[in-house]
Amino acid sequence: MNKKYITSTQNATIKLAKELLKKKAARKKHGLFVIEGIRAVKEIPVQASIETLLVSETVDEAIYEDMEVKEALIIPESLFQTISETTTPQGIMAIVKKVDRSLDELTMQEGAYLLLENLQDPGNLGTIIRTAHAFNFKGIFMTKGCVDLYSPKVVRSTMSSLFYMPIVMDGEIEDYMTYLKDRDYIIYTTALRAEAKWTYDLNFEKNMVLVIGNEGNGVSEYCLEHTDYTMMIPMPGGAESLNASVATAVCMYEVIRQRRK
Amino acid sequence: MNKKYITSTQNATIKLAKELLKKKAARKKHGLFVIEGIRAVKEIPVQASIETLLVSETVDEAIYEDMEVKEALIIPESLFQTISETTTPQGIMAIVKKVDRSLDELTMQEGAYLLLENLQDPGNLGTIIRTAHAFNFKGIFMTKGCVDLYSPKVVRSTMSSLFYMPIVMDGEIEDYMTYLKDRDYIIYTTALRAEAKWTYDLNFEKNMVLVIGNEGNGVSEYCLEHTDYTMMIPMPGGAESLNASVATAVCMYEVIRQRRK
Repeated sequence: MNKKYITSTQNATIKLAKELLKKKAARKKHGLFVIEGIRAVKEIPVQASIETLLVSETVDEAIYEDMEVKEALIIPESLFQTISETTTPQGIMAIVKKVDRSLDELTMQEGAYLLLENLQDPGNLGTIIRTAHAFNFKGIFMTKGCVDLYSPKVVRSTMSSLFYMPIVMDGEIEDYMTYLKDRDYIIYTTALRAEAKWTYDLNFEKNMVLVIGNEGNGVSEYCLEHTDYTMMIPMPGGAESLNASVATAVCMYEVIRQRRK
Repeated sequence: MNKKYITSTQNATIKLAKELLKKKAARKKHGLFVIEGIRAVKEIPVQASIETLLVSETVDEAIYEDMEVKEALIIPESLFQTISETTTPQGIMAIVKKVDRSLDELTMQEGAYLLLENLQDPGNLGTIIRTAHAFNFKGIFMTKGCVDLYSPKVVRSTMSSLFYMPIVMDGEIEDYMTYLKDRDYIIYTTALRAEAKWTYDLNFEKNMVLVIGNEGNGVSEYCLEHTDYTMMIPMPGGAESLNASVATAVCMYEVIRQRRK
């Protein structure tokens, strides 16, 4: 590992890290994003995808010296704090290559996929990716209107699961649905509709995709017209709605419950 | 509605609101807490439980004039902002009577209950209460070690559901479990243990309670020794764990799925 000691706020890598944390456009332009925190950085599965480590001089070398990283910049704690996006910085962050892929690069597997249409809340997206990984979903399609996968809060709440899920982003709902139908994946959409069935009255044993809509407005008309089934989670108790990451998790659980039986 | 115009930061009600938002001890001493936001305030089901409305002078009177509230204090927007705990204050908050009850005041119903042992994250607690309400759970027991039900972030994330759930708090796990066993409620505990069964291999059709432990450490030894069943959510995909509010929601869904069949 090549170590450099930097103190200048004008250093190009320091400036890059700040930009990547703040701006989607910068992440897109450079094909990079930032992961913060000791555990999060150590759990990056392919260390070759780390471009640079940024480390506060207060951090014990033992924490990172065995990582297979080309370059580490050691910087003053005060400078680290000006870059960090967390309330209690742990003194370590990594600049990492993005992991999403295009539709052409995707190899479809047998099983269940998730399609997120205009999901807006970063915490919800991160939690959904983590849950999809736990429940062995094979990949995630995100429409253009979704919150950026690489924004710091999403990255934090995935708990490293974003490295394990094939994720396609920035596409149109029409293109995703055509792609999936062409390959015989059955489309299930969550929506409060008269014709919707209870989750447990549907059969999820074939290759399939579960569509989740926007937190406030649900799924688009296009999606409702072209879905194979619409479904609802029973809410007998009177609360009007569930948190989006909770509702998605419940649907995914029903899918794996049936597929494991 | 009695309206008063206040500009002094030293006004007793202003000081009380600040204290109630910041300190658990103040909420306990006064038996009051604060709810912020237009929708949240309007959704308080028993308006008689509102002691005082605090309203910014910038808020349209039409929004609150039909509420059956004894007293509204109209205050300058700048003063409102110094009290508010939200990032984008909506100019309205209510000081409200606490709604929890003691074990003696509880009337047990047929069905499913939730017991939370030392749950720490405010967002998780709020989301769990909202989900329990949607899934028609009959009440919630919270041990002493849980985060305060009345802290602003919990109140916000319950989305008014805390008014609909009978909640007992500040008790010991031993007392709750004895109380429930004496009344023939079957105890199910989520824990990663060799003897644990998959959620869907258990039967939840009798009167029951679901125990959820602390985010980091799980449930106590006492709880594991005295539970009737331990259970796990299947995670075939490789992620180590689920977010606590997601895991709780999935278990609650399995319970209502079986009870509705």
